[in-house]
Amino acid sequence: MQPRRELLSHRALGVTQSAVRDVFDIAMGPRLISLAGGNPWLADLPLEELSRIAADLVAQQGTESLQYGPGQGLLEMRQAAAAVMAVDGIPDADPELVVITPGSQAAIDTACRTFGNPGDVVVVEDPTFVGALTTFNTWELDAVATPTDEQGLIPASLEETLTALAAEGRRVAFLYTIPSFANPSGALLPAERRDEVAAVCERHGVLIVEDNPYGQIAFDGAPLTPIAAAHRENTVYLGTMSKIFSPGVRIGWALVPSALKREYYLAAESAFIHASTYSQMLSTAFLTQLDWQGHVREVTDLYRERAAALAGAVREHWDPAVEFADPKGGFFLWATLPQGVDTLALMHRGIEAGAVFVPGAAFSPVEGVHSTLRLAYPFVDAERLVEGVQRLAPAVNEAVAEARTR
Amino acid sequence: MQPRRELLSHRALGVTQSAVRDVFDIAMGPRLISLAGGNPWLADLPLEELSRIAADLVAQQGTESLQYGPGQGLLEMRQAAAAVMAVDGIPDADPELVVITPGSQAAIDTACRTFGNPGDVVVVEDPTFVGALTTFNTWELDAVATPTDEQGLIPASLEETLTALAAEGRRVAFLYTIPSFANPSGALLPAERRDEVAAVCERHGVLIVEDNPYGQIAFDGAPLTPIAAAHRENTVYLGTMSKIFSPGVRIGWALVPSALKREYYLAAESAFIHASTYSQMLSTAFLTQLDWQGHVREVTDLYRERAAALAGAVREHWDPAVEFADPKGGFFLWATLPQGVDTLALMHRGIEAGAVFVPGAAFSPVEGVHSTLRLAYPFVDAERLVEGVQRLAPAVNEAVAEARTR
Repeated sequence: MQPRRELLSHRALGVTQSAVRDVFDIAMGPRLISLAGGNPWLADLPLEELSRIAADLVAQQGTESLQYGPGQGLLEMRQAAAAVMAVDGIPDADPELVVITPGSQAAIDTACRTFGNPGDVVVVEDPTFVGALTTFNTWELDAVATPTDEQGLIPASLEETLTALAAEGRRVAFLYTIPSFANPSGALLPAERRDEVAAVCERHGVLIVEDNPYGQIAFDGAPLTPIAAAHRENTVYLGTMSKIFSPGVRIGWALVPSALKREYYLAAESAFIHASTYSQMLSTAFLTQLDWQGHVREVTDLYRERAAALAGAVREHWDPAVEFADPKGGFFLWATLPQGVDTLALMHRGIEAGAVFVPGAAFSPVEGVHSTLRLAYPFVDAERLVEGVQRLAPAVNEAVAEARTR
Repeated sequence: MQPRRELLSHRALGVTQSAVRDVFDIAMGPRLISLAGGNPWLADLPLEELSRIAADLVAQQGTESLQYGPGQGLLEMRQAAAAVMAVDGIPDADPELVVITPGSQAAIDTACRTFGNPGDVVVVEDPTFVGALTTFNTWELDAVATPTDEQGLIPASLEETLTALAAEGRRVAFLYTIPSFANPSGALLPAERRDEVAAVCERHGVLIVEDNPYGQIAFDGAPLTPIAAAHRENTVYLGTMSKIFSPGVRIGWALVPSALKREYYLAAESAFIHASTYSQMLSTAFLTQLDWQGHVREVTDLYRERAAALAGAVREHWDPAVEFADPKGGFFLWATLPQGVDTLALMHRGIEAGAVFVPGAAFSPVEGVHSTLRLAYPFVDAERLVEGVQRLAPAVNEAVAEARTR
């Protein structure tokens, strides 16, 4: 059947399924070692206790847990989200300002809906979360990169970016940032830069959307205080159950400035009415009845070991020209190959060799050849991580060698 | 805190929380008899069996049910949705063309995203589903009513509406229709009109979004065959678990024309990645392991009784000038009071008297005074339904009498 393009909206016509996604759809299979997905490790969840809770939620509370709930989310869920945010470093989040969403992708989407007009700019790190870029694309928002270094956003550069955009007369819908263990770069924005970033944005009247799925997955010491903590009225702060509990329940949330909450909430409700009542009650039970912080510590320990195994294997088996920083937390190791290496082409060769990563192109608003790639370690045991790196090694090292001779 | 209006998108500024909603937020309490909400009756679900399934999904399949899943939805869920659609009257729905969404509100929203440009028209019945109107509003789509009668859409009028819109140079994103037991009117579009509506739309190149949450809640005989059955390539067909199982799991779906599936699916994924894996597996189990059709028959019997009790009470206690048709299925009784009666004002007086309904203004794209109202019967037992009608009677009858003297 011929696609009936005339039925599609401009935004639908503008969405291009990435080359990366097309490959994934074809390639994903049990034979492959996947260093691609951002899946958390779930086997260490207290499944027996959770199973009893899941049963009780139906047997004893089924007429509530299976029924419609309030659009903003259940109060108990919003209170539990506030407790998670307290551990993130925001001690006084008001549940009245929390909107529960079916995953934080929907919270990003709702931010676009609430704050962005077609043609507006969203300022982003380059690289940044591929799912956010997709959403910006569908809302016809231009993702404009502001320079970063290995620690993330550079306040002085952000100042320049916003000044230049203002000079061009562009409206900036918001700055989208993942300050802690960013996806995909792993960068951890230092505390002093957080306040500077907030100050730059406030000076320019630019809202911040701070996405913090990984803040508690910190390998050394406590999480850094989120930007939102001291800049509540200019920051929409996004949290999620996906990395500390379960992505399958699809529960995320936004802590919204009081002055913007009503509009954010109504936009969310127009998109999906509310997040699953059952998922909210299961998540609330996990956060109030079980030792969730113990679980986070446990998986953080596991991820630390896996990250070390992965980094060690890259160091051992890949050409030293491949640059990367040892992960300090979060889910990802970000590697930069010599200029000119096309990691999209490399991905195809990697799949033939039996392992898959995500090429850097997926994470960049800038089209063209990218020489970066992302490796994920949480879902694969150390032995298989090493095996995956070894499988990729010939293709990687050959690509590096070819780049040298150019 | 002063709302920072300059941060909001045009669409967010355009969304007005309805007067109805503001009242509901204040008024809803246990003292009130609510004839307002569209909640299904859940107490007759097989909660013990479901509870065992819910437990097993965590204990035995937790690493799957709590994990990310495919963007289009689990294959088993899409197959189960196809089985539901077979009972709806679409015997051969291809699971490859089904996209699972977190409730059908999200499927409507995705249709707007995929097919609508700002300023486009969505042709609607007046009255129509308030949630759809809200979504159209946020997407800056103009809901334009085409005339209806007590049986729903009038094909000749639809022809005129589309011709007039074409003459005005307006792009029509789609026709949004609820042909079976419409919310709120309860209208059931006759079989012959269904084909005529499809033919009119095809002639004008206008896509149909057919929303069918209530089709199986038929008080007399089998469901009427959906428009989509014979007009698959021009219809996006929406189904949901909300009325046959549970709205709290937030599982709906779209059966999409093959030529438009890729764009629809990508738009959906950009909004929410995928619907809850756990909710999908629980819904699939309900549809494959339990007697779901028996449950639908049981609640349909219950709703038939309640509808009869409600209609009888209205006939007995309200002025005969209040016009309504006995519900033939679905969730709602739609009543029309004499012209000039403002049912929004009447709602306030009703709340004082201890019962609440939804005034017609909520369901209309046309602003101004509306003399219609919606009563919902599924969630309230017959005795309380009668009590609610009695509580409302003095205010209703007084308003009718006032209208007469004008």
